[in-house]
Amino acid sequence: MTTIAGGLPQLFTEDVFLRDLRHAVPAGRLLTDADALGRYAHDDAAWAPFVPPLAVVLATSTEEVAAVVRVAGEHDVRIVARGAGTGLSGGANAVDRSIVLSLEAMRTVLRIDADERVVDCEAGVVNDDLRAAVAVEGLWYPPDPASSQWSTIGGNAATNAGGICCVKYGVTGDYVLGMTVVLADGSIARLGRRTAKGTVGYDLTALMVGSEGTLGIITELTLKLLPLAGREERGVIGVFPSLRAAGEAVAAVSRAGILPAALELIDRTCLRAVDEWQGLGLPHDAEAMLLAKVDQVGEAGAALAERMATLFREAGGTDVRTAEDPDAVDVLFRARRLAYPALERLGPVLTEDVCVPRTQVPEMLTRIQAAAAEHDVVIANIAHAGDGNLHPLIIATPDDPAAEARAQEAFARIIDDCLALGGTVAGEHGVGLLKLHGAHDELGPRVLEMHESIKSALDPRRLLNPGKAFPKH
Amino acid sequence: MTTIAGGLPQLFTEDVFLRDLRHAVPAGRLLTDADALGRYAHDDAAWAPFVPPLAVVLATSTEEVAAVVRVAGEHDVRIVARGAGTGLSGGANAVDRSIVLSLEAMRTVLRIDADERVVDCEAGVVNDDLRAAVAVEGLWYPPDPASSQWSTIGGNAATNAGGICCVKYGVTGDYVLGMTVVLADGSIARLGRRTAKGTVGYDLTALMVGSEGTLGIITELTLKLLPLAGREERGVIGVFPSLRAAGEAVAAVSRAGILPAALELIDRTCLRAVDEWQGLGLPHDAEAMLLAKVDQVGEAGAALAERMATLFREAGGTDVRTAEDPDAVDVLFRARRLAYPALERLGPVLTEDVCVPRTQVPEMLTRIQAAAAEHDVVIANIAHAGDGNLHPLIIATPDDPAAEARAQEAFARIIDDCLALGGTVAGEHGVGLLKLHGAHDELGPRVLEMHESIKSALDPRRLLNPGKAFPKH
Repeated sequence: MTTIAGGLPQLFTEDVFLRDLRHAVPAGRLLTDADALGRYAHDDAAWAPFVPPLAVVLATSTEEVAAVVRVAGEHDVRIVARGAGTGLSGGANAVDRSIVLSLEAMRTVLRIDADERVVDCEAGVVNDDLRAAVAVEGLWYPPDPASSQWSTIGGNAATNAGGICCVKYGVTGDYVLGMTVVLADGSIARLGRRTAKGTVGYDLTALMVGSEGTLGIITELTLKLLPLAGREERGVIGVFPSLRAAGEAVAAVSRAGILPAALELIDRTCLRAVDEWQGLGLPHDAEAMLLAKVDQVGEAGAALAERMATLFREAGGTDVRTAEDPDAVDVLFRARRLAYPALERLGPVLTEDVCVPRTQVPEMLTRIQAAAAEHDVVIANIAHAGDGNLHPLIIATPDDPAAEARAQEAFARIIDDCLALGGTVAGEHGVGLLKLHGAHDELGPRVLEMHESIKSALDPRRLLNPGKAFPKH
Repeated sequence: MTTIAGGLPQLFTEDVFLRDLRHAVPAGRLLTDADALGRYAHDDAAWAPFVPPLAVVLATSTEEVAAVVRVAGEHDVRIVARGAGTGLSGGANAVDRSIVLSLEAMRTVLRIDADERVVDCEAGVVNDDLRAAVAVEGLWYPPDPASSQWSTIGGNAATNAGGICCVKYGVTGDYVLGMTVVLADGSIARLGRRTAKGTVGYDLTALMVGSEGTLGIITELTLKLLPLAGREERGVIGVFPSLRAAGEAVAAVSRAGILPAALELIDRTCLRAVDEWQGLGLPHDAEAMLLAKVDQVGEAGAALAERMATLFREAGGTDVRTAEDPDAVDVLFRARRLAYPALERLGPVLTEDVCVPRTQVPEMLTRIQAAAAEHDVVIANIAHAGDGNLHPLIIATPDDPAAEARAQEAFARIIDDCLALGGTVAGEHGVGLLKLHGAHDELGPRVLEMHESIKSALDPRRLLNPGKAFPKH
């Protein structure tokens, strides 16, 4: 119910709300057909709850987003903002009495300042499109989530997305200098800066990054870039007789003080799934493969690659090879990129995203195997191993409630194990809906109270994506 | 006045407050003598207002800080937390009805995890002491404010301090993974994580960094470290016929996509002041000197140093030299480190801290010279030029109110110019009290409202360092 100031409560009428919304958004970009409502009702997370939204808005400007938020606010309708909907935690799932506000049509790269190494873009620009646009100017935007072909910069920022090169170059938030946000009252605020440094006021930019659209809707971003030149990629690859042995190699790289530009793990289940699909000639008998890159130039880079290869061999790695040719390096990483779609062919995939201290990677991998055995589920592993960020993928049998229940139990068990090892329950996918329980255990009551206070401060009526990003305390 | 719940207002009695405080803090660490109150009443900022505090507490544990905050809260007494008091914006200045809570006695490095490259330490650990402790384990803590000999890690985090190597390696906040904070109600919260990545909940760690003790009191920190090895420092130095020419060299380095590990500027006034004090044989006729480092290893590093030297020459630099020997590099940077104390010998120094886009450095330096001429003041320049972070140092005549007024006018004029060029009014020294006016112009009313909301959410009674970090809107 909407309360009129000083008056009687008024019943919510969907028709009246939609009529008002039509004043803010042209017909072609205000979708209410069942097909659209279904398509936009959820992101890529398996088994996270959702309901159909009242409408879908394809916004084209910050001002339009602000107008939509104001209309929604007048009717006490919640706003779930989203980019491409590639999230894996349910953060973009529609909630009761909500509209989905998609920013995918805001895909303009506004300004590339090559001298300053800064780019301004709209939130709906696709990650790969941004990289391509800045590469023309000799610049590099490092954060590279596996979804980079589809996911948007705004969504990347709202979830603080990671990726493969983050082990050396950091995550999305490390590149966000400033942003334009639409706040819960429909006002527009410009946060952050365009300079290399800045210490004026609270870091509200960092507060918005990773807040999953619960504190404001990011419509434009100012991003820091690196020079594209000055790196030479060398690949190092090895196969291992056990997950634990591969984990020991990862821990050894960390102990040796090596900063790889990528250090990825894929296990036997993934290798087989990719190979049966694509026939890349991958080893079927290896329990795990590590794929690494170093990008220091010249002899230093070559020496580092050799040193990493030695550490791989010392940890029990076989068939350890290095590659200098960029195409050869690329081929090595193809199996990694194809792992997720290859596994999705086998059944519904429940994606974990735990992150443990790097030296705990062997122990965590062992515990994941134990969880699979104990709960009788198939768990495949891909991992940004160099970050300690593991993605055990729990593959369920379609339409088998008992199997689904066992998968959920294994999911919960892995979260408990990760916390016991000093880890965090969401390395790069955010909390969304799937990690609310884990986040509750991780954060504790006082820190959750701080979350409630800040949410109340910036969105007192709980209009922006309520129920996501942090649990009730 | 303290209001008793449901009762009559009660007059504040300093004696009663101090009696209660004595229950929380042993006598030797609760200072109330005039000398101590004077010494702890302010930081190193010239001309920022302060009053003597009611007491000074030298805390030794998180629990003690929490107890002090609770006692202060019961008496509506404000708490101004500080480290070594080396701040240059008045952020640690005592306010009306406050105590100063010093964390300088909390100087234990709690745990160095060399394999994980993470250190836990108390907030009062001195920056240089932390670097020395982790260096023993082959690790490097990069942020290096000029005050590193004295300033504490907690103070560095509370102000998000920068330094010389930040041009390549980032500022304090980029290394803070987690922290223990005492909140305004005297409760203790653990924020952040120990893992390489993490996306659980709001980034409250980043919110605390740079908040100048207005949202919580940082008592312990978990910091990310880098390997000490893998770098080879090469120095590049050049003298320039004008500030603008030196600025053009800085902009050229940015345009060329070079990431120096340091790129510092010192002008003629500084060169003379240092040389007259220390007799280093510095050039007296140069208008400016640039001091740079690159730290890529091997031939790549040598080539980069040569390329930077060429850019210096093309911008009009003379006597351009490179140095590979670490001691020789160190000598080159001695003048930079001595510039501030050398200038302080000449009179009270009003320190600016503007940060402009790198390509605006030449224009900003020109405007600073114009401000000096127009307001008839001496302005010396040291700058983290590669970041666009300039420190025009306005040197006033002691005990000359007219000169002081002219200095203040020049200070305000430089802030306006910085904003006109797309800059920020506080690159690395924070807002404190000196930049409240500039922050007001920079942030605008809606963003200031967000600050007020967040302050109210976490410190509703305005007990923690009120009036700092952001202005009223």
